[in-house]
Amino acid sequence: MSRIDVQQKVLAANSAVAEALRASFRTSGTLVVNVISSPGSGKTTLLEVTARALKSRLRLGGLDGDIATERDAERLRRAGIPARQILTGGACHLDARQVGKALGEEGEGLAGLDVLFIENVGNLICPTSYDLGEDFKVVLLSVAEGDDKPFKYPAIFARAAVTVITKTDLLPHVDFDLSAVREQVAALNPAGRFLVTSARTGEGMESWYALVEEELAAKRARTEMAVAP
Amino acid sequence: MSRIDVQQKVLAANSAVAEALRASFRTSGTLVVNVISSPGSGKTTLLEVTARALKSRLRLGGLDGDIATERDAERLRRAGIPARQILTGGACHLDARQVGKALGEEGEGLAGLDVLFIENVGNLICPTSYDLGEDFKVVLLSVAEGDDKPFKYPAIFARAAVTVITKTDLLPHVDFDLSAVREQVAALNPAGRFLVTSARTGEGMESWYALVEEELAAKRARTEMAVAP
Repeated sequence: MSRIDVQQKVLAANSAVAEALRASFRTSGTLVVNVISSPGSGKTTLLEVTARALKSRLRLGGLDGDIATERDAERLRRAGIPARQILTGGACHLDARQVGKALGEEGEGLAGLDVLFIENVGNLICPTSYDLGEDFKVVLLSVAEGDDKPFKYPAIFARAAVTVITKTDLLPHVDFDLSAVREQVAALNPAGRFLVTSARTGEGMESWYALVEEELAAKRARTEMAVAP
Repeated sequence: MSRIDVQQKVLAANSAVAEALRASFRTSGTLVVNVISSPGSGKTTLLEVTARALKSRLRLGGLDGDIATERDAERLRRAGIPARQILTGGACHLDARQVGKALGEEGEGLAGLDVLFIENVGNLICPTSYDLGEDFKVVLLSVAEGDDKPFKYPAIFARAAVTVITKTDLLPHVDFDLSAVREQVAALNPAGRFLVTSARTGEGMESWYALVEEELAAKRARTEMAVAP
Protein backbone atom coordinates (compact mmCIF):
# COMPACT_ATOMS: atom_id res chain seq x y z
CA MET A 1 0.00 0.00 0.00
CA SER A 2 1.55 3.32 -1.05
CA ARG A 3 1.85 6.41 1.09
CA ILE A 4 -0.96 8.10 -0.86
CA ASP A 5 -3.25 5.05 -0.45
CA VAL A 6 -2.62 5.11 3.30
CA GLN A 7 -3.33 8.85 3.41
CA GLN A 8 -6.62 8.39 1.53
CA LYS A 9 -7.63 5.58 3.87
CA VAL A 10 -6.82 7.74 6.91
CA LEU A 11 -8.85 10.65 5.53
CA ALA A 12 -11.83 8.39 4.71
CA ALA A 13 -11.79 6.94 8.23
CA ASN A 14 -11.56 10.46 9.66
CA SER A 15 -14.54 11.62 7.58
CA ALA A 16 -16.70 8.78 8.90
CA VAL A 17 -15.94 9.75 12.50
CA ALA A 18 -16.47 13.44 11.67
CA GLU A 19 -19.91 12.74 10.22
CA ALA A 20 -20.92 10.94 13.41
CA LEU A 21 -19.71 13.93 15.44
CA ARG A 22 -21.64 16.28 13.15
CA ALA A 23 -24.83 14.30 13.72
CA SER A 24 -24.30 14.49 17.46
CA PHE A 25 -23.67 18.26 17.33
CA ARG A 26 -26.89 18.61 15.28
CA THR A 27 -28.82 16.78 18.00
CA SER A 28 -27.33 18.90 20.77
CA GLY A 29 -27.71 22.14 18.78
CA THR A 30 -24.05 22.99 19.37
CA LEU A 31 -22.36 25.26 16.84
CA VAL A 32 -18.81 23.96 16.25
CA VAL A 33 -16.10 26.23 14.90
CA ASN A 34 -12.71 24.84 13.78
CA VAL A 35 -10.13 27.62 14.24
CA ILE A 36 -6.96 27.28 12.13
CA SER A 37 -3.85 29.41 11.66
CA SER A 38 -0.06 29.49 11.85
CA PRO A 39 1.49 29.44 15.30
CA GLY A 40 1.22 32.88 16.82
CA SER A 41 -1.58 34.36 14.71
CA GLY A 42 -3.71 34.87 17.80
CA LYS A 43 -6.12 31.91 17.95
CA THR A 44 -6.08 31.61 21.74
CA THR A 45 -6.26 35.37 22.21
CA LEU A 46 -9.30 35.62 19.91
CA LEU A 47 -11.02 32.87 21.90
CA GLU A 48 -10.09 34.38 25.29
CA VAL A 49 -11.58 37.73 24.32
CA THR A 50 -14.64 36.02 22.82
CA ALA A 51 -15.12 33.98 25.99
CA ARG A 52 -15.06 37.08 28.17
CA ALA A 53 -17.50 38.90 25.88
CA LEU A 54 -20.07 36.14 25.28
CA LYS A 55 -19.96 33.80 28.28
CA SER A 56 -22.72 35.66 30.12
CA ARG A 57 -25.24 34.90 27.37
CA LEU A 58 -23.91 31.71 25.69
CA ARG A 59 -22.56 28.41 27.01
CA LEU A 60 -19.12 28.29 25.39
CA GLY A 61 -16.37 25.68 25.55
CA GLY A 62 -12.99 24.98 23.97
CA LEU A 63 -10.86 22.11 22.75
CA ASP A 64 -7.22 23.08 22.21
CA GLY A 65 -4.92 21.01 20.02
CA ASP A 66 -1.18 21.24 20.52
CA ILE A 67 2.01 19.24 20.16
CA ALA A 68 2.98 20.00 23.75
CA THR A 69 1.88 22.00 26.84
CA GLU A 70 -1.56 22.53 28.42
CA ARG A 71 -1.15 26.27 28.16
CA ASP A 72 -3.93 27.16 25.72
CA ALA A 73 -6.70 25.29 27.55
CA GLU A 74 -5.53 26.90 30.81
CA ARG A 75 -5.85 30.32 29.18
CA LEU A 76 -9.45 29.59 28.12
CA ARG A 77 -10.34 28.28 31.58
CA ARG A 78 -8.92 31.46 33.10
CA ALA A 79 -11.15 33.36 30.68
CA GLY A 80 -14.09 31.58 32.31
CA ILE A 81 -15.11 28.77 29.98
CA PRO A 82 -14.59 24.99 30.19
CA ALA A 83 -11.72 23.84 28.00
CA ARG A 84 -9.72 20.70 27.41
CA GLN A 85 -6.28 20.30 25.88
CA ILE A 86 -5.66 17.59 23.28
CA LEU A 87 -1.99 16.70 22.87
CA THR A 88 -1.51 15.26 19.41
CA GLY A 89 1.69 13.36 20.11
CA GLY A 90 3.62 15.18 17.42
CA ALA A 91 0.88 15.18 14.77
CA CYS A 92 0.47 18.47 12.92
CA HIS A 93 -3.35 18.60 13.14
CA LEU A 94 -6.31 17.38 15.17
CA ASP A 95 -8.41 14.50 13.90
CA ALA A 96 -12.07 13.64 14.50
CA ARG A 97 -11.27 10.64 16.71
CA GLN A 98 -9.30 12.87 19.11
CA VAL A 99 -12.21 15.33 19.27
CA GLY A 100 -14.71 12.56 19.95
CA LYS A 101 -12.51 11.05 22.66
CA ALA A 102 -12.00 14.40 24.40
CA LEU A 103 -15.74 15.12 24.35
CA GLY A 104 -16.57 11.64 25.62
CA GLU A 105 -14.53 12.04 28.77
CA GLU A 106 -16.46 12.97 31.88
CA GLY A 107 -16.22 16.00 34.06
CA GLU A 108 -15.03 18.52 31.52
CA GLY A 109 -18.23 20.51 31.29
CA LEU A 110 -18.23 20.22 27.51
CA ALA A 111 -21.74 18.75 27.18
CA GLY A 112 -24.76 20.90 26.28
CA LEU A 113 -22.77 23.80 24.85
CA ASP A 114 -24.12 26.49 22.58
CA VAL A 115 -20.76 26.95 20.89
CA LEU A 116 -17.68 24.72 20.88
CA PHE A 117 -14.49 26.33 19.61
CA ILE A 118 -11.89 23.83 18.43
CA GLU A 119 -8.49 25.50 18.34
CA ASN A 120 -6.45 23.41 15.96
CA VAL A 121 -2.67 22.82 16.09
CA GLY A 122 -0.76 25.89 14.87
CA ASN A 123 -0.34 25.04 11.20
CA LEU A 124 -1.73 26.45 7.93
CA ILE A 125 -1.41 23.19 6.00
CA CYS A 126 -2.17 19.89 7.76
CA PRO A 127 -5.45 20.84 9.50
CA THR A 128 -7.00 21.78 6.14
CA SER A 129 -7.79 18.18 5.17
CA TYR A 130 -9.20 16.88 8.47
CA ASP A 131 -12.92 17.35 9.02
CA LEU A 132 -13.68 17.55 12.75
CA GLY A 133 -17.47 17.58 12.38
CA GLU A 134 -17.45 21.39 12.54
CA ASP A 135 -20.06 23.74 11.10
CA PHE A 136 -17.32 25.83 9.54
CA LYS A 137 -13.62 26.56 9.56
CA VAL A 138 -12.14 29.94 10.47
CA VAL A 139 -8.64 30.87 9.32
CA LEU A 140 -6.68 33.61 11.09
CA LEU A 141 -3.89 35.67 9.53
CA SER A 142 -1.98 38.24 11.55
CA VAL A 143 -0.79 41.39 9.81
CA ALA A 144 2.73 40.59 11.07
CA GLU A 145 2.82 37.49 8.82
CA GLY A 146 2.87 39.31 5.51
CA ASP A 147 0.32 39.98 2.78
CA ASP A 148 1.29 37.12 0.45
CA LYS A 149 -0.06 34.28 2.56
CA PRO A 150 -3.49 33.44 1.01
CA PHE A 151 -1.95 32.65 -2.40
CA LYS A 152 0.94 30.77 -0.75
CA TYR A 153 -1.40 28.59 1.37
CA PRO A 154 -4.47 28.55 -0.87
CA ALA A 155 -6.25 25.44 0.38
CA ILE A 156 -7.13 26.72 3.83
CA PHE A 157 -8.17 30.17 2.59
CA ALA A 158 -10.37 28.51 -0.04
CA ARG A 159 -12.03 26.17 2.49
CA ALA A 160 -12.49 28.42 5.52
CA ALA A 161 -15.92 30.06 5.56
CA VAL A 162 -14.41 32.96 7.51
CA THR A 163 -11.03 34.70 7.25
CA VAL A 164 -10.13 36.79 10.31
CA ILE A 165 -7.28 39.25 9.94
CA THR A 166 -5.75 39.77 13.41
CA LYS A 167 -3.41 42.22 15.17
CA THR A 168 -4.38 45.23 13.07
CA ASP A 169 -2.95 47.39 15.90
CA LEU A 170 0.44 46.46 14.32
CA LEU A 171 -0.49 47.84 10.87
CA PRO A 172 1.44 51.11 11.34
CA HIS A 173 4.60 49.09 12.04
CA VAL A 174 4.57 46.43 9.29
CA ASP A 175 4.30 46.19 5.51
CA PHE A 176 0.86 44.67 4.99
CA ASP A 177 -1.46 45.57 2.13
CA LEU A 178 -4.90 44.76 3.52
CA SER A 179 -6.71 45.31 0.23
CA ALA A 180 -4.32 42.92 -1.55
CA VAL A 181 -5.10 40.24 1.05
CA ARG A 182 -8.82 40.88 0.71
CA GLU A 183 -8.52 40.42 -3.06
CA GLN A 184 -6.53 37.18 -2.71
CA VAL A 185 -9.12 35.72 -0.34
CA ALA A 186 -12.00 36.88 -2.57
CA ALA A 187 -10.35 35.15 -5.55
CA LEU A 188 -9.87 31.89 -3.62
CA ASN A 189 -13.18 31.97 -1.79
CA PRO A 190 -15.80 34.29 -3.29
CA ALA A 191 -18.49 33.29 -0.76
CA GLY A 192 -16.22 33.62 2.28
CA ARG A 193 -16.64 36.22 5.04
CA PHE A 194 -13.69 38.53 5.73
CA LEU A 195 -13.23 40.23 9.12
CA VAL A 196 -10.54 42.69 10.17
CA THR A 197 -9.78 42.63 13.89
CA SER A 198 -7.52 43.55 16.76
CA ALA A 199 -8.09 41.79 20.08
CA ARG A 200 -5.97 44.54 21.66
CA THR A 201 -8.00 47.55 20.46
CA GLY A 202 -11.30 45.71 20.00
CA GLU A 203 -11.51 46.61 16.30
CA GLY A 204 -13.85 44.26 14.46
CA MET A 205 -14.65 42.12 17.50
CA GLU A 206 -18.36 43.04 17.52
CA SER A 207 -18.63 41.78 13.92
CA TRP A 208 -17.02 38.50 14.98
CA TYR A 209 -19.40 38.07 17.93
CA ALA A 210 -22.36 38.87 15.67
CA LEU A 211 -21.19 36.29 13.14
CA VAL A 212 -20.96 33.58 15.83
CA GLU A 213 -24.43 34.43 17.16
CA GLU A 214 -25.97 34.54 13.67
CA GLU A 215 -24.45 31.17 12.77
CA LEU A 216 -25.74 29.65 16.01
CA ALA A 217 -29.25 31.02 15.37
CA ALA A 218 -29.16 29.73 11.78
CA LYS A 219 -28.11 26.26 12.94
CA ARG A 220 -30.88 26.16 15.54
CA ALA A 221 -33.43 27.27 12.90
CA ARG A 222 -32.30 24.53 10.52
CA THR A 223 -32.56 21.93 13.29
CA GLU A 224 -36.10 23.05 14.15
CA MET A 225 -37.17 22.88 10.51
CA ALA A 226 -35.71 19.39 10.23
CA VAL A 227 -37.71 18.10 13.24
CA ALA A 228 -40.93 19.99 12.45
CA PRO A 229 -43.84 17.70 11.54
CA MET B 1 1.10 -1.88 6.90
CA SER B 2 0.04 0.71 9.49
CA ARG B 3 0.28 4.46 9.13
CA ILE B 4 3.25 4.54 11.53
CA ASP B 5 5.06 1.79 9.60
CA VAL B 6 4.58 3.74 6.37
CA GLN B 7 5.85 6.90 8.06
CA GLN B 8 8.97 5.12 9.33
CA LYS B 9 9.62 3.66 5.90
CA VAL B 10 9.26 7.11 4.30
CA LEU B 11 11.66 8.65 6.82
CA ALA B 12 14.23 5.87 6.34
CA ALA B 13 14.11 6.31 2.56
CA ASN B 14 14.46 10.07 3.01
CA SER B 15 17.49 9.63 5.27
CA ALA B 16 19.26 7.50 2.68
CA VAL B 17 18.79 10.18 0.01
CA ALA B 18 19.81 12.89 2.49
CA GLU B 19 23.08 11.08 3.30
CA ALA B 20 23.93 10.91 -0.41
CA LEU B 21 23.24 14.65 -0.71
CA ARG B 22 25.42 15.29 2.37
CA ALA B 23 28.31 13.37 0.78
CA SER B 24 27.94 15.43 -2.39
CA PHE B 25 27.87 18.72 -0.43
CA ARG B 26 31.03 17.55 1.40
CA THR B 27 32.77 16.98 -1.92
CA SER B 28 31.71 20.37 -3.27
CA GLY B 29 32.51 22.14 0.01
CA THR B 30 29.03 23.71 0.06
CA LEU B 31 27.59 24.72 3.42
CA VAL B 32 23.89 23.84 3.45
CA VAL B 33 21.49 25.55 5.84
CA ASN B 34 17.89 24.31 6.28
CA VAL B 35 15.78 27.32 7.32
CA ILE B 36 12.52 26.49 9.13
CA SER B 37 9.74 28.57 10.69
CA SER B 38 6.02 29.28 10.71
CA PRO B 39 4.60 31.14 7.72
CA GLY B 40 5.47 34.81 8.02
CA SER B 41 8.37 34.65 10.50
CA GLY B 42 10.66 36.26 7.95
CA LYS B 43 12.61 33.43 6.29
CA THR B 44 12.67 34.99 2.83
CA THR B 45 13.41 38.44 4.22
CA LEU B 46 16.38 37.09 6.24
CA LEU B 47 17.74 35.41 3.11
CA GLU B 48 17.17 38.49 0.90
CA VAL B 49 19.11 40.70 3.30
CA THR B 50 21.82 38.04 3.68
CA ALA B 51 22.11 37.72 -0.10
CA ARG B 52 22.60 41.47 -0.51
CA ALA B 53 25.19 41.57 2.27
CA LEU B 54 27.30 38.52 1.37
CA LYS B 55 26.95 37.96 -2.39
CA SER B 56 30.03 40.03 -3.22
CA ARG B 57 32.29 37.66 -1.29
CA LEU B 58 30.44 34.32 -1.28
CA ARG B 59 28.67 32.30 -3.97
CA LEU B 60 25.18 31.94 -2.49
CA GLY B 61 22.08 30.16 -3.76
CA GLY B 62 18.59 29.29 -2.59
CA LEU B 63 15.99 26.55 -2.81
CA ASP B 64 12.53 27.67 -1.74
CA GLY B 65 9.87 25.18 -0.72
CA ASP B 66 6.22 26.18 -0.91
CA ILE B 67 2.76 24.75 -1.42
CA ALA B 68 2.05 27.29 -4.17
CA THR B 69 3.56 30.33 -5.95
CA GLU B 70 7.10 31.03 -7.22
CA ARG B 71 7.24 34.20 -5.18
CA ASP B 72 10.03 33.39 -2.71
CA ALA B 73 12.56 32.24 -5.32
CA GLU B 74 11.77 35.36 -7.35
CA ARG B 75 12.53 37.50 -4.30
CA LEU B 76 15.94 35.81 -3.87
CA ARG B 77 16.75 36.21 -7.57
CA ARG B 78 15.88 39.90 -7.31
CA ALA B 79 18.29 40.05 -4.35
CA GLY B 80 20.98 38.87 -6.75
CA ILE B 81 21.47 35.14 -6.12
CA PRO B 82 20.39 32.05 -8.08
CA ALA B 83 17.30 30.43 -6.61
CA ARG B 84 14.83 27.74 -7.54
CA GLN B 85 11.32 27.18 -6.25
CA ILE B 86 10.21 23.68 -5.26
CA LEU B 87 6.43 23.27 -5.18
CA THR B 88 5.61 20.42 -2.83
CA GLY B 89 2.19 19.61 -4.23
CA GLY B 90 0.45 20.17 -0.92
CA ALA B 91 3.06 18.48 1.28
CA CYS B 92 3.89 20.37 4.48
CA HIS B 93 7.69 20.00 4.20
CA LEU B 94 10.51 19.49 1.71
CA ASP B 95 12.11 16.07 1.36
CA ALA B 96 15.61 15.08 0.29
CA ARG B 97 14.47 13.68 -3.06
CA GLN B 98 12.94 17.05 -4.02
CA VAL B 99 16.17 18.82 -3.08
CA GLY B 100 18.28 16.38 -5.11
CA LYS B 101 15.98 16.69 -8.12
CA ALA B 102 16.05 20.51 -8.01
CA LEU B 103 19.85 20.57 -7.76
CA GLY B 104 20.19 18.03 -10.58
CA GLU B 105 18.37 20.21 -13.07
CA GLU B 106 20.52 22.22 -15.43
CA GLY B 107 20.81 25.93 -15.88
CA GLU B 108 19.92 27.04 -12.37
CA GLY B 109 23.39 28.17 -11.34
CA LEU B 110 23.17 26.11 -8.17
CA ALA B 111 26.43 24.15 -8.74
CA GLY B 112 29.69 25.11 -7.05
CA LEU B 113 28.10 27.24 -4.32
CA ASP B 114 29.76 28.26 -1.08
CA VAL B 115 26.44 28.36 0.76
CA LEU B 116 23.06 26.88 -0.20
CA PHE B 117 20.09 28.15 1.83
CA ILE B 118 17.11 25.81 1.76
CA GLU B 119 14.00 27.71 2.76
CA ASN B 120 11.57 25.06 3.93
CA VAL B 121 7.76 25.19 3.68
CA GLY B 122 6.29 27.53 6.31
CA ASN B 123 5.60 25.09 9.13
CA LEU B 124 7.07 24.52 12.61
CA ILE B 125 6.18 20.83 12.74
CA CYS B 126 6.50 18.71 9.59
CA PRO B 127 9.96 19.88 8.38
CA THR B 128 11.50 18.85 11.71
CA SER B 129 11.71 15.15 10.81
CA TYR B 130 13.02 15.40 7.24
CA ASP B 131 16.81 15.52 6.83
CA LEU B 132 17.73 17.38 3.63
CA GLY B 133 21.46 16.67 3.82
CA GLU B 134 22.01 20.03 5.51
CA ASP B 135 24.89 20.97 7.82
CA PHE B 136 22.43 22.43 10.29
CA LYS B 137 18.88 23.63 10.77
CA VAL B 138 17.96 27.20 11.66
CA VAL B 139 14.60 27.98 13.24
CA LEU B 140 13.13 31.49 13.09
CA LEU B 141 10.63 32.94 15.55
CA SER B 142 9.20 36.42 15.10
CA VAL B 143 8.45 38.49 18.21
CA ALA B 144 4.90 38.93 16.85
CA GLU B 145 4.26 35.18 17.32
CA GLY B 146 4.35 35.17 21.11
CA ASP B 147 6.86 34.04 23.70
CA ASP B 148 5.39 30.60 24.42
CA LYS B 149 6.38 28.95 21.15
CA PRO B 150 9.57 26.96 21.97
CA PHE B 151 7.82 24.87 24.63
CA LYS B 152 4.73 24.49 22.40
CA TYR B 153 6.80 23.28 19.41
CA PRO B 154 9.74 21.69 21.23
CA ALA B 155 11.08 19.33 18.55
CA ILE B 156 12.28 21.99 16.14
CA PHE B 157 13.76 24.21 18.83
CA ALA B 158 15.61 21.16 20.24
CA ARG B 159 16.98 20.12 16.83
CA ALA B 160 17.89 23.46 15.25
CA ALA B 161 21.53 24.38 15.87
CA VAL B 162 20.55 28.05 15.62
CA THR B 163 17.46 29.93 16.81
CA VAL B 164 16.99 33.34 15.18
CA ILE B 165 14.54 35.72 16.80
CA THR B 166 13.24 38.07 14.07
CA LYS B 167 11.36 41.38 13.80
CA THR B 168 12.71 42.83 17.06
CA ASP B 169 11.71 46.26 15.67
CA LEU B 170 8.18 45.21 16.73
CA LEU B 171 9.16 44.60 20.39
CA PRO B 172 7.76 47.95 21.62
CA HIS B 173 4.35 47.01 20.15
CA VAL B 174 3.88 43.38 21.29
CA ASP B 175 3.98 41.31 24.49
CA PHE B 176 7.11 39.22 24.06
CA ASP B 177 9.43 38.28 26.91
CA LEU B 178 12.76 37.74 25.16
CA SER B 179 14.51 36.36 28.24
CA ALA B 180 11.72 33.80 28.74
CA VAL B 181 12.18 32.61 25.15
CA ARG B 182 15.94 32.45 25.60
CA GLU B 183 15.43 30.26 28.70
CA GLN B 184 12.99 27.94 26.91
CA VAL B 185 15.42 27.44 24.03
CA ALA B 186 18.36 26.93 26.43
CA ALA B 187 16.37 24.25 28.27
CA LEU B 188 15.47 22.44 25.04
CA ASN B 189 18.82 22.88 23.34
CA PRO B 190 21.71 23.79 25.66
CA ALA B 191 24.31 23.73 22.86
CA GLY B 192 22.25 25.83 20.44
CA ARG B 193 23.13 29.33 19.26
CA PHE B 194 20.60 32.12 19.89
CA LEU B 195 20.53 35.28 17.75
CA VAL B 196 18.28 38.31 18.12
CA THR B 197 17.67 40.17 14.87
CA SER B 198 15.68 42.68 12.89
CA ALA B 199 16.11 42.69 9.12
CA ARG B 200 14.48 46.13 9.14
CA THR B 201 16.90 47.85 11.56
CA GLY B 202 19.87 45.54 10.94
CA GLU B 203 20.07 44.51 14.61
CA GLY B 204 21.96 41.24 14.99
CA MET B 205 22.54 40.73 11.27
CA GLU B 206 26.34 40.98 11.55
CA SER B 207 26.28 38.12 14.08
CA TRP B 208 24.25 36.05 11.65
CA TYR B 209 26.63 36.74 8.75
CA ALA B 210 29.60 35.89 11.01
CA LEU B 211 27.95 32.62 12.03
CA VAL B 212 27.43 31.63 8.37
CA GLU B 213 31.04 32.46 7.47
CA GLU B 214 32.44 30.65 10.53
CA GLU B 215 30.40 27.54 9.75
CA LEU B 216 31.56 27.60 6.13
CA ALA B 217 35.21 27.96 7.22
CA ALA B 218 34.80 25.13 9.74
CA LYS B 219 33.29 22.84 7.09
CA ARG B 220 36.11 23.59 4.67
CA ALA B 221 38.71 22.92 7.40
CA ARG B 222 37.07 19.55 8.21
CA THR B 223 37.05 18.62 4.53
CA GLU B 224 40.75 19.48 4.16
CA MET B 225 41.63 17.40 7.23
CA ALA B 226 39.66 14.48 5.84
CA VAL B 227 41.54 14.51 2.53
CA ALA B 228 45.00 15.30 3.99
CA PRO B 229 47.52 12.44 3.56
